[in-house]
Amino acid sequence: MAVDRHARVVVLGAGFGGLTFCQHFRHPAAQVTVVDRTNHHLFQPLLYQVAVAGLSAPDIAQPIRSILARTPRSEVVLEDVREVDLAARRVVCANKVLPYDYLVLALGSVTSYYGHPEWAEFAPGLKTLEDALLIRRNLLLAFEKAENSTDPAEQARLMTIVIVGGGPTGVELAGACAELARHVLRRDFGHIDPAQARIVLIEAAPRILANLPPDLSDSGQRQLENLGVQVRTATRVKAIRAGCVELENGETIAAENILWAAGVMAHPLTRSLGVELDRAGRIKVTPDLSVPGHPEVFALGDMALALDERGAPVPGIAPAAMQMARHVARLIADELDLGKGRAPRPPFRYRDRGTMATIGRSAGAAIIGKVKLTGFPAWLAWLVVHLIFLIGFRNKLVVLLSWTYSYFTYKLGARIITGWPRTQPEESPPG
Amino acid sequence: MAVDRHARVVVLGAGFGGLTFCQHFRHPAAQVTVVDRTNHHLFQPLLYQVAVAGLSAPDIAQPIRSILARTPRSEVVLEDVREVDLAARRVVCANKVLPYDYLVLALGSVTSYYGHPEWAEFAPGLKTLEDALLIRRNLLLAFEKAENSTDPAEQARLMTIVIVGGGPTGVELAGACAELARHVLRRDFGHIDPAQARIVLIEAAPRILANLPPDLSDSGQRQLENLGVQVRTATRVKAIRAGCVELENGETIAAENILWAAGVMAHPLTRSLGVELDRAGRIKVTPDLSVPGHPEVFALGDMALALDERGAPVPGIAPAAMQMARHVARLIADELDLGKGRAPRPPFRYRDRGTMATIGRSAGAAIIGKVKLTGFPAWLAWLVVHLIFLIGFRNKLVVLLSWTYSYFTYKLGARIITGWPRTQPEESPPG
Repeated sequence: MAVDRHARVVVLGAGFGGLTFCQHFRHPAAQVTVVDRTNHHLFQPLLYQVAVAGLSAPDIAQPIRSILARTPRSEVVLEDVREVDLAARRVVCANKVLPYDYLVLALGSVTSYYGHPEWAEFAPGLKTLEDALLIRRNLLLAFEKAENSTDPAEQARLMTIVIVGGGPTGVELAGACAELARHVLRRDFGHIDPAQARIVLIEAAPRILANLPPDLSDSGQRQLENLGVQVRTATRVKAIRAGCVELENGETIAAENILWAAGVMAHPLTRSLGVELDRAGRIKVTPDLSVPGHPEVFALGDMALALDERGAPVPGIAPAAMQMARHVARLIADELDLGKGRAPRPPFRYRDRGTMATIGRSAGAAIIGKVKLTGFPAWLAWLVVHLIFLIGFRNKLVVLLSWTYSYFTYKLGARIITGWPRTQPEESPPG
Repeated sequence: MAVDRHARVVVLGAGFGGLTFCQHFRHPAAQVTVVDRTNHHLFQPLLYQVAVAGLSAPDIAQPIRSILARTPRSEVVLEDVREVDLAARRVVCANKVLPYDYLVLALGSVTSYYGHPEWAEFAPGLKTLEDALLIRRNLLLAFEKAENSTDPAEQARLMTIVIVGGGPTGVELAGACAELARHVLRRDFGHIDPAQARIVLIEAAPRILANLPPDLSDSGQRQLENLGVQVRTATRVKAIRAGCVELENGETIAAENILWAAGVMAHPLTRSLGVELDRAGRIKVTPDLSVPGHPEVFALGDMALALDERGAPVPGIAPAAMQMARHVARLIADELDLGKGRAPRPPFRYRDRGTMATIGRSAGAAIIGKVKLTGFPAWLAWLVVHLIFLIGFRNKLVVLLSWTYSYFTYKLGARIITGWPRTQPEESPPG
């Protein structure tokens, strides 16, 4: 590949992988263009807090332009990517075409319903700010509807929340929903007792938090049960309809809110590339993280199936995506210095720094290196790690204060229901 | 009217008027029900800050249930009011019917396009959180589109913002838009210079801020012009189309964003009551603020045309609505104590505490009693008054910090573009 004076490096996606790449890749002979269809980087690990009204949307989102304002020779393009033409080495967007010398695929993942896209309508996933705002709206409205209802069976259905999927997202959502109902909303209503809300966590595997050691899974389940969450392991969902989950054991659960945290798959762009994918749609990358047959194209994070030293898939978590981004940034910069093919490319090595999940406001489960934590220490570790991650976020102080305030008062500040814009206010119904 | 043991007091609307009524009305023989179609009280004077990305939506909204959690014998109903049946003394909502002994109408106002509802589509008003989020989205997207455009004329159109209406809302919006473009976004883009954005404020009257004395209007106009806003007084809008404002003098202004701050009218419910209204749809209330012919029904704030001691209409501002609310709360409580008709009802007396508008981040115009302020002192007075109003808001500290941070860094934190929920993420386009 002939790299001219300014190598064009195009990065698709401004998540943890894409942004970390931009921040670490510096080369005087390269111009970086990052493409995202939103204008903000999303701090996904806290997305569930927006869904349960603990934080507001801007608390966990930051304009991409601000983050990269001081990065030289970088450009931000707000665009929908339509197609990647690997042969012609160009990215086709809705309104422009971007030729590249190097391409970094970092679009992350989307919610996967495992062949049942029709469930999406009744059981929203939690991947975007819009998802979180929709869930927040639905959760809060359910209690309002229950307050207005006079039918006890209907009230019970309205106050039932089913969370499908017992990974970290599902566990965090279940714990946060339990606290929303039992503490935050407790004194708000006259006709219902929100503390009577039923929160059910459904997991197909024999244990929740399968990415943690079994003893931590057990601890996590006990901690959730202490918050009043009903944990159903080894339980599979057969069908989801409006307001109803049908289980494979024949049981049905009537629930106004059904939240889907059971799985993700790589961004659907991977399916159009004509390269080999795993079942989750991830690209089976080479050891240096490039796309087989296309050494100028790399895939990061949730779009890539990379293997660790034991041959196991690198997990789809932010630290892994960031490690991959730094690897690729170094690799491309070295290649621009030396000229392509001068030195063999080093393989990516994943360093497992640990895994953690928070459960409600003061519990959790974590493994950091060989140290296992549960309960309050795990929660504290989670908090510290996430605040460190938030460094550089202008809202860090606001987020910390919001949390501290909520922690001591059990009142969540973002508990507002917003709807859709009304463009014709004069024609809106009275009320 | 025979008031039974528990008089049923129904309050429509949880704005400044409705909530102040609930907080001041206490009577052991009464049950208060407040009805609102949203779950939050909105701090409307700061709505323009959400529209220009200075504050997030939850910063200026608070759940009604939280505000009234400690008010005894009060109930909150989230409902759309369909109809008020004055003869049968009941309020018909979408899902329930509320009979009343006393009714307080406090639904406020909606944007008025003076007989041109078709303009709403092209020139959104600013009355609800949804309005503010829509405007925020459109303003930020315009700069993104300009960055992507290569046509200078199109870039100029995208970077033009027209604000129709030179009252406090229009002036505050114009000043805030100017600072958004000239300071906040200044370094974010590579191909455009946001400081070149054109902001035009159009006012039909000979001067802006017509509710203030003429010298303050002049000062306000000079302060806006110092921020780079083009102020066009004595200029009338003839038509508004998509991306274009046509003036009566024949001139047209091509602008991606057209914001409507030219007028409001009373909530349309007033038109269904069969009582006398003024041109803005306000109920011509009796001196005690009751609806003529219906001594058990009161109207407050923007729904009422009340007159001050000189016979001039009481202005449609929050302090006026709150004064009316306290008057009606006292009046009903006295009547429940004494029995109806025992004593003549006292008339409402409006106390003018002043008027103020802020212009950008450190300027403004205010009249407080007989004291006139301009520039930084006016801005400071505005800040102090609004922070006092915010007392009781749990987000007060967060708002103050957000502002302080923004003030010193010129970076606004809520600068994110959110769209509509996607219920079928698997089918969303790649990108």
